[in-house]
This record gives sequence, C-alpha cells and structure tokens, in this order.
Amino acid sequence: MNNTIITISRQIGSGGRSAGRLLAQMLEVPFYDRAIVDLAAKESGMDAEFIENGEQMITSSMLFNVAAMGYGGYFTDAGNTLTDKIYMAESKVIRNIAEKGPCVIVGRCADYILRDYDCLNVFMYADMKTRAERLMEERKITLKEAEKLIKTSDKRRSRHYEHYTGRTWGKMTNYHLCIDGGKTGYKLAAELMKKALEK
Amino acid sequence: MNNTIITISRQIGSGGRSAGRLLAQMLEVPFYDRAIVDLAAKESGMDAEFIENGEQMITSSMLFNVAAMGYGGYFTDAGNTLTDKIYMAESKVIRNIAEKGPCVIVGRCADYILRDYDCLNVFMYADMKTRAERLMEERKITLKEAEKLIKTSDKRRSRHYEHYTGRTWGKMTNYHLCIDGGKTGYKLAAELMKKALEK
Repeated sequence: MNNTIITISRQIGSGGRSAGRLLAQMLEVPFYDRAIVDLAAKESGMDAEFIENGEQMITSSMLFNVAAMGYGGYFTDAGNTLTDKIYMAESKVIRNIAEKGPCVIVGRCADYILRDYDCLNVFMYADMKTRAERLMEERKITLKEAEKLIKTSDKRRSRHYEHYTGRTWGKMTNYHLCIDGGKTGYKLAAELMKKALEK
Repeated sequence: MNNTIITISRQIGSGGRSAGRLLAQMLEVPFYDRAIVDLAAKESGMDAEFIENGEQMITSSMLFNVAAMGYGGYFTDAGNTLTDKIYMAESKVIRNIAEKGPCVIVGRCADYILRDYDCLNVFMYADMKTRAERLMEERKITLKEAEKLIKTSDKRRSRHYEHYTGRTWGKMTNYHLCIDGGKTGYKLAAELMKKALEK
C-alpha cells in the first residue's frame, strides 16, 4: 500500500460509490462521500441538508433560492453565490482530509481540488440499462423515474464539474483509470483500482 | 482464463501495443497487430506495404493515390475506395481470427468489427510528455518529430475510426476499460487488463 489518495468520479447508477466503499475497506483507509457534506456544514455554519440540496445547483432553482433566503439570499456579502460558498467549504474539507493521508473520496470534484496531490483519479460509468436497474433496485423506483434521475444527474454533475474546474466531466484523459461498471460490477472495479495502486 | 477476446485501441506512444503483447504472453493467446496487414494482403491480393500505408488514408493523399494507380486507381470497379477495400479485407481477417478463440488484437477498429463477440474493449492513452518521450526512445527521433507524429497519428486514427464505425474514437463509454499508460506503465496496464477478465 502506498500513500495515494483515490478519487472516484462516477455516473449515477454505475456502482462507483459501492466500489469506492469496498476499496476503502480493502485498503483499510477512510472513505468519504456524504461525510464531506457534514464536515462542510461544520466548516461553513450552513445546514447539512441545505448543502446537500445545493451542491449542484449552479443555475437558479426556485426551491433552492427560496431555501437560500434563510442565509440572506442566493448571493453572499462577498458576491459569491451560495453554491460557490458550498464549493469552497467542501474544497477546504477535502484538502484537510487529503493532508491526513491515504483515503477514498467519491465525487465533489476531488480529482480537481487535489490536482497537486499524489492521487489515482478514477471515473466509473455504465450503460443505461445497468444504471437504471441499479437505481430501481436501490431506490425502489420505476424505470421511468430511474431514467429521469439519470438524465437530471448527468446534466447536473457535468455542469457543476465544468463550472468549477473548467474541465470536461467524464473526459477520459482527465482520469488515470476509467471503468465500465456494467461490464465489471463494483467488486471487480474495486479490485482494479487496488491493482492500479501497485505501480 | 475465459473465452474473451481483448481489443486494444490506443493513442500512439501510450504503450498500448507493448501492453497488448505482454498481455497475450501472460494469457498464452495469439497477439495480432501488424500480422493483420499480412493476412489482409493474402486475403485481398494487395501488397502488404501498400495496405500498411493506405490503412488510414481516407482523404486524398497524393502519394497514396499515385501508388493506387498500380491497382487501377483509387476507386475499385465496385465503386469502393481502395481504403474501403483494405478495411473490408482487414475486417474479414479480424472476424476469422476471432472465430479461432481468445486473442489480443491491437487497433484496426477491432472493437467495432467484433461488436457482436464477447470482447473486453480497452483504450490506452497517456499525457503528451510520456508519449513523446516513448516515441523519441523507440524511433530515435527528435522531440519536434515526435510531437508532429503524435498530432498526425491522432488525427488519422480518429478520422479513420469515425469514418468506418460512426463512433467517436477515444470516447470513454465505447470501451470497458480505459488506462492512462503514463500513470501505470505498460506492464501494470497489461495486468489490469488481465484482472478485468476475472469477471
């Protein structure tokens, strides 16, 4: 085991989070996903649920803007949007985590935020059928709902990533390893990531 | 070891061919790269060297067209271009190879040609520095020459692939596994491919 931090970006329903959790267990290192939201809440003084809802809301969402009124409106005194504030709080948390040593971080532009660290950056994707079936099973939703969720999530994640990093989300060359979770399943995906650390 | 055929598409200088050759040795299966040209020559009655030069010449190349005169001009009697004829001969060869069982095939749109077979489709890429250094070492050329070669090769390979497959060359979701050879090196890349077959 070396000192590498593994960042996993992933399409919803690809099994990226499950692979990340398993990898962290295999490596016996901390796993960060939703925990980043709680840490960012503590860091920023914002409510965790508000952060979670606002994470990928770059453009105006009526519901988010109404909620934002509780924090004095969508724009902060410094002229940043609340989404910027969330991004900055999460970035600080992610850098703090990275300073502590090896870990697995899922999502939240960690590959970009930690671009000056020794990371293995992974992207996980899958075919539409695999993704929809996974979401239907996990969330007990219909095929139609799953397909809608996938469409919305892909749009939000790519827009959010591109806004804050200036890079293209899911562009192969931004990552060291890209895995089709539909072909491998999340267990083998985790093993592939572990193998890639052997360098 | 299962019955899978591994196709490797790759950027020039990424180490994809070396990884493929090593993988074939590890799996003890045949490795096909340049050999496809010789087989296609036999299949089509065209000269192997002519095929190799013409493989990715979709658009008009003066030199290629002059050479093509030896075969009665750039267009065949059936109205196909000679490049089409090369593609068809290579496709036939690749399908014949696949019928014989597991193997490793590098390049030549094999991922698309064998889309109805049980394949593991891999794409290998690397950062510009790694690619240029590799080519300088392998071919004893200058940095400037290596960079020019990379630019020309990327353009040709992507245009050729897109012309015959209707797909985008190097688009993550067209492959099961995408590996940054600059990060892993060709040896670990081969091991990752082998690992991916464990499913």
